[in-house]
Amino acid sequence: MHISPKPARTFIGRLKHNDNLLEALTNFCKEQKITLGTFNVIGAVKCAKLGYYNQELQKYDGCVELNKKLEIASCMGNISLKDGEIMVHVHIVLADFEGKAFGGHLVPGAKIFAAEFHIQEYIGAELHRGKDQETGLPLWKK
Amino acid sequence: MHISPKPARTFIGRLKHNDNLLEALTNFCKEQKITLGTFNVIGAVKCAKLGYYNQELQKYDGCVELNKKLEIASCMGNISLKDGEIMVHVHIVLADFEGKAFGGHLVPGAKIFAAEFHIQEYIGAELHRGKDQETGLPLWKK
Amino acid sequence: MHISPKPARTFIGRLKHNDNLLEALTNFCKEQKITLGTFNVIGAVKCAKLGYYNQELQKYDGCVELNKKLEIASCMGNISLKDGEIMVHVHIVLADFEGKAFGGHLVPGAKIFAAEFHIQEYIGAELHRGKDQETGLPLWKK
Repeated sequence: MHISPKPARTFIGRLKHNDNLLEALTNFCKEQKITLGTFNVIGAVKCAKLGYYNQELQKYDGCVELNKKLEIASCMGNISLKDGEIMVHVHIVLADFEGKAFGGHLVPGAKIFAAEFHIQEYIGAELHRGKDQETGLPLWKK
Repeated sequence: MHISPKPARTFIGRLKHNDNLLEALTNFCKEQKITLGTFNVIGAVKCAKLGYYNQELQKYDGCVELNKKLEIASCMGNISLKDGEIMVHVHIVLADFEGKAFGGHLVPGAKIFAAEFHIQEYIGAELHRGKDQETGLPLWKK
Repeated sequence: MHISPKPARTFIGRLKHNDNLLEALTNFCKEQKITLGTFNVIGAVKCAKLGYYNQELQKYDGCVELNKKLEIASCMGNISLKDGEIMVHVHIVLADFEGKAFGGHLVPGAKIFAAEFHIQEYIGAELHRGKDQETGLPLWKK
């Protein structure tokens, strides 16, 4: 399934030092009422937490806690709606002082050191998440 | 060398569970007749295969087989033409349940668990791949 | 803080074999007078160097030297101004022949094997970097 929305506003900026990365991104989108979009972030965090979805058990049963300072080597995702609320889906790659890379699905717990974002909003269509039978994930409904 | 094309259609959607990631992306672009574009994907796969280009031997002589469930932590690439056919060039970063990251050039063999994509089409110019003498790779011709 | 600029030119192309990745990207932006933008790069390098910012000491005190051939699994960043000059901020994920991933802040020292870029220019606003008191980094001024 797919939609073909139209580009609308672009936002480039930075998030606040010490804020929670996932929460700060979500709040920015809610404040700006961005209901559909894509984004990238680079920067660094003081620590982070990654969720891991167990494909067999169909639940997030693991969580990688990275209790160290890390560069945000890559961060990308999308903005859509779930239960009528703006929801940000974020995947990230982090790297420690030795360059060693970690990655996964971002969950609350990453504290921002510095974060530069680029968000592209789209309009003219909507994407709603709902439980997908095959995966158990809140995927976009057909 | 570079071109300055104009943005055209945007596509946001998801690929089918159990499809091959590279094939599914390529087929989508062919169905939509996207001959020039860029894209991102996040999600998860049941397994994956990464090609590694040997810069000295000038051929893909290695292949990393990841026979485990992985998050797509980052996935980006471009769409252009090779021998008149639509070709998708995909680089990816995958992460396992411990957050350990793997990366490289995506080759056939990654089975989709869930995959959310964002494709930006461009028009007004074309890029054609042909064998580059310096690298042996099918790069865009000047 | 954030700005809402307007999209302007798009550039898709490739950088020259054996050039320095950071320098080549910066030079391209200077030649094209791109003062604000975002970009992605995929490809491969013959070697690379990653900077690591020490959040406590507030300086780049470490440097990961990767003296091996690597795929550019992910590369993203932004273009803005620092001291009136065009400055490119690049974060990268690299992968070796075993698929092992490394990441961080790109510093001079990565020699291009092949590099395909996509740059989106923005106009109508400016971002200037200046020393941030909290982090010591040259962040965008409010």
